[in-house]
Amino acid sequence: EIVDAIEAQFSGHALLAGRKAVVTAGPTHEPIDPVRYIANRSSGKQGYAIAEALARLGAETHLVSGPTALPDPAGVQVTRIETAREMLAATEAALPADIAICCAAVADWRADTSTNSKLKKDGSGQIPPLGLVENPDILATISVAGPKRPRLVVGFAAETDDVIGYATAKRQRKGCDWIVANDVSPGTGIMGGDDNTVHLITAGDPEHWDPMPKAQVAMKLAERVADALTDKQ
Amino acid sequence: EIVDAIEAQFSGHALLAGRKAVVTAGPTHEPIDPVRYIANRSSGKQGYAIAEALARLGAETHLVSGPTALPDPAGVQVTRIETAREMLAATEAALPADIAICCAAVADWRADTSTNSKLKKDGSGQIPPLGLVENPDILATISVAGPKRPRLVVGFAAETDDVIGYATAKRQRKGCDWIVANDVSPGTGIMGGDDNTVHLITAGDPEHWDPMPKAQVAMKLAERVADALTDKQ
Repeated sequence: EIVDAIEAQFSGHALLAGRKAVVTAGPTHEPIDPVRYIANRSSGKQGYAIAEALARLGAETHLVSGPTALPDPAGVQVTRIETAREMLAATEAALPADIAICCAAVADWRADTSTNSKLKKDGSGQIPPLGLVENPDILATISVAGPKRPRLVVGFAAETDDVIGYATAKRQRKGCDWIVANDVSPGTGIMGGDDNTVHLITAGDPEHWDPMPKAQVAMKLAERVADALTDKQ
Repeated sequence: EIVDAIEAQFSGHALLAGRKAVVTAGPTHEPIDPVRYIANRSSGKQGYAIAEALARLGAETHLVSGPTALPDPAGVQVTRIETAREMLAATEAALPADIAICCAAVADWRADTSTNSKLKKDGSGQIPPLGLVENPDILATISVAGPKRPRLVVGFAAETDDVIGYATAKRQRKGCDWIVANDVSPGTGIMGGDDNTVHLITAGDPEHWDPMPKAQVAMKLAERVADALTDKQ
């Protein structure tokens, strides 16, 4: 990591030197009981690549990650959590920051009680009721105006229908600056895969990026972030 | 794997040579929609270790595994599946066998419909109803008497309360020969850990095994399996 950091400093690419970034990545797991949980599918690959790209450009980068099979990215401080509530707490603890990129696939809902005893089939054929309650909305919470709001807040939208429409509405509803949208329909191979096809939704026209490896999406996004912060100076 | 197989053949430990075994391991993931699923916690470590131990003793071993981060065990044929229904189909396809060891943490329930579109929060604060239906019971299905029933069927019971009582009742209810029971209460470190403390429930008195590494539990169980099949000849 030290070599990477030195390399970034001396390569002329330290476009984000002196900036602080927080990135969320991976799924969250919401326990139902000691052995069961509700989860979102997310390999974490895109978020980890973004954290690594920001660090390569010189940003002091903090990654808040749900359960993944990935190693810590080089040069990045990593906090591993399990639930949406833990992710929100760890993300808020990483503020203030100049940049927040919320890439995690946070579970919208959690079981309304998590018990310390395992739920059992009782032989009646009756299904136990599974009550759900809404999780905190990390992107919307981070996006609220205030002294701790990062100057640039970027959300992700993994959609299966009308990708641009939903993502544009999501940007307005959440109060974030940009949305990176992608189509995760079964068959696209994006979920868990190494490539991604994204659309960048800003206040202007949507930008459609060519399909490319997730590492390249990450570097292109990190460079756009650096440009945006320079423009805003 | 070839070296391992030859080693087993010539080491004098090929106690299960000529036997066929099927082992299930890992969790199942039950999709709710393209991005969400219900899962059981299971690293798969104990089941993978058992499959490897059976193969080391010379058994032709087929492992049916849910999603895990583990590499295929040496000398074992592996079929990877995701849901309980897929696990049942793959296990039945691996029969006939002399030995079935059902170590997987199969989800008791699945969502009653899995949709190809992502469920959305609609801003109403209303929670979408999540209907659950019971999954097939793989251990009970395999244990039913008939020409394809393995001579020895072993189930697992991961419990948090009254471990021996539940496991003894489970053995009778499922119709299997043995139950390997363990206490997975939070704090035991067994779930996901490398050690295990198990109790072997047979038709006789419960046996309490000392805490030991999962690989050692696996070899001890494989040797007990070999003894039992020899006694039954």
